[in-house]
Amino acid sequence: MPEINENNRHLFDKYTLEEKMRLYEAAAELFSENKRQLFDRLVLNRTRHICVVLEDIFQSHNASAVLRSCDCFGVQDVHVVENRNHYAPNSDVSMGSDKWVDYYKHPNILQTYDELHARGYRVIATLPHENDTMITDLDISQPIALVFGTELTGLTQEAIDHADGYVKVPMYGFTESFNISVCAALSLFCLTERMRAAGNIHWQLSDEEQATLKLYWAMQVIHDGRRVMEHLMEVRRKN
Amino acid sequence: MPEINENNRHLFDKYTLEEKMRLYEAAAELFSENKRQLFDRLVLNRTRHICVVLEDIFQSHNASAVLRSCDCFGVQDVHVVENRNHYAPNSDVSMGSDKWVDYYKHPNILQTYDELHARGYRVIATLPHENDTMITDLDISQPIALVFGTELTGLTQEAIDHADGYVKVPMYGFTESFNISVCAALSLFCLTERMRAAGNIHWQLSDEEQATLKLYWAMQVIHDGRRVMEHLMEVRRKN
Repeated sequence: MPEINENNRHLFDKYTLEEKMRLYEAAAELFSENKRQLFDRLVLNRTRHICVVLEDIFQSHNASAVLRSCDCFGVQDVHVVENRNHYAPNSDVSMGSDKWVDYYKHPNILQTYDELHARGYRVIATLPHENDTMITDLDISQPIALVFGTELTGLTQEAIDHADGYVKVPMYGFTESFNISVCAALSLFCLTERMRAAGNIHWQLSDEEQATLKLYWAMQVIHDGRRVMEHLMEVRRKN
Repeated sequence: MPEINENNRHLFDKYTLEEKMRLYEAAAELFSENKRQLFDRLVLNRTRHICVVLEDIFQSHNASAVLRSCDCFGVQDVHVVENRNHYAPNSDVSMGSDKWVDYYKHPNILQTYDELHARGYRVIATLPHENDTMITDLDISQPIALVFGTELTGLTQEAIDHADGYVKVPMYGFTESFNISVCAALSLFCLTERMRAAGNIHWQLSDEEQATLKLYWAMQVIHDGRRVMEHLMEVRRKN
């Protein structure tokens, strides 16, 4: 179902920004003006300055709740590492957010870290007991990939050892941990609010990224979206 | 099980601060030094400047998750209104936090509001769609009671109409609501962090409240705590 996320990753790669925008104009004939305005508004709030890595989330309702929080806070990219557990979105919990957020599947954590480093991210592991930086104090001037582990055993040693830093959410009570989905929501809320308020961080998607994302979103609201989009591309190619 | 919360509410009412402290010294002989240090540390982080009202939370695992967040952020008082749904803590989810947080049961929302107003609280309803104050901008100089509604139908009209103000958590995505437990965690995190950082808010419990709370906590870690505490009180009364 979430066509945006794996199979169509490179569908529009060969198009220029201008071609993408023209293609979007054609596609937009096929859905309502309301949707179009919604996409225009929401795409301005999307970011890749902060992204999320989920390592082996066992309960898919927890992973889906994290996807939902990502959508709510405008965090576009979720990297799912499946060492042992296979993840499929649970739409009761994700509330359809898997349609609007990009998720990337990875076979192991080190390859994920390598890819993120190559794209300029600092990889920050969330550890409830770590006596390290509070999420409220984390330096967010550079792009941040936030890593969350499973409910059962936390992050693997590998995921911890190879991270660039550690954060935790401040806690003042007897209970010393949050549910994974609450922890992710708190962390993302805190970081994205600070990011939006900062004024000196270029957190928005580039024009190119915005145009591409709107094409993927359009595919989600057009019936048989992928086929229709390919048809529109074919028409344009011929003219 | 959570003896602190309903049946023992007035157990220590007739004692002065000094008597409470002496009683606590006697009780502390019955549990470890570690626990004692933990109580001393955590009681300093407890607050009644912010409290929580839950109206008819249908799923007790959601209510328990809110209790857990209250404990984590040091919010001591939770008011549970049971118009229709009966609440019993779910200890798998609350992680025992119901032992450390005070909860108060109320038969209806208006009586709850009256009590809170009498104690100086502004009653603020959380409404996801309300075009009102962002939680990040809410004035917290005066004590705040934050009201959360059910998952199914939100707050009742009565709960909305009689509130002193409305807040929402900022959202930027397609998904336009959070799970109730996530919403509560985000709101409490945001408000308590701002409260602790403010510097000019007297948010800590009074000496009297701290002494009383430590007695209740002590009862939770002493086997057959209530009976033992009554025995200690009896001994003190006789001497």
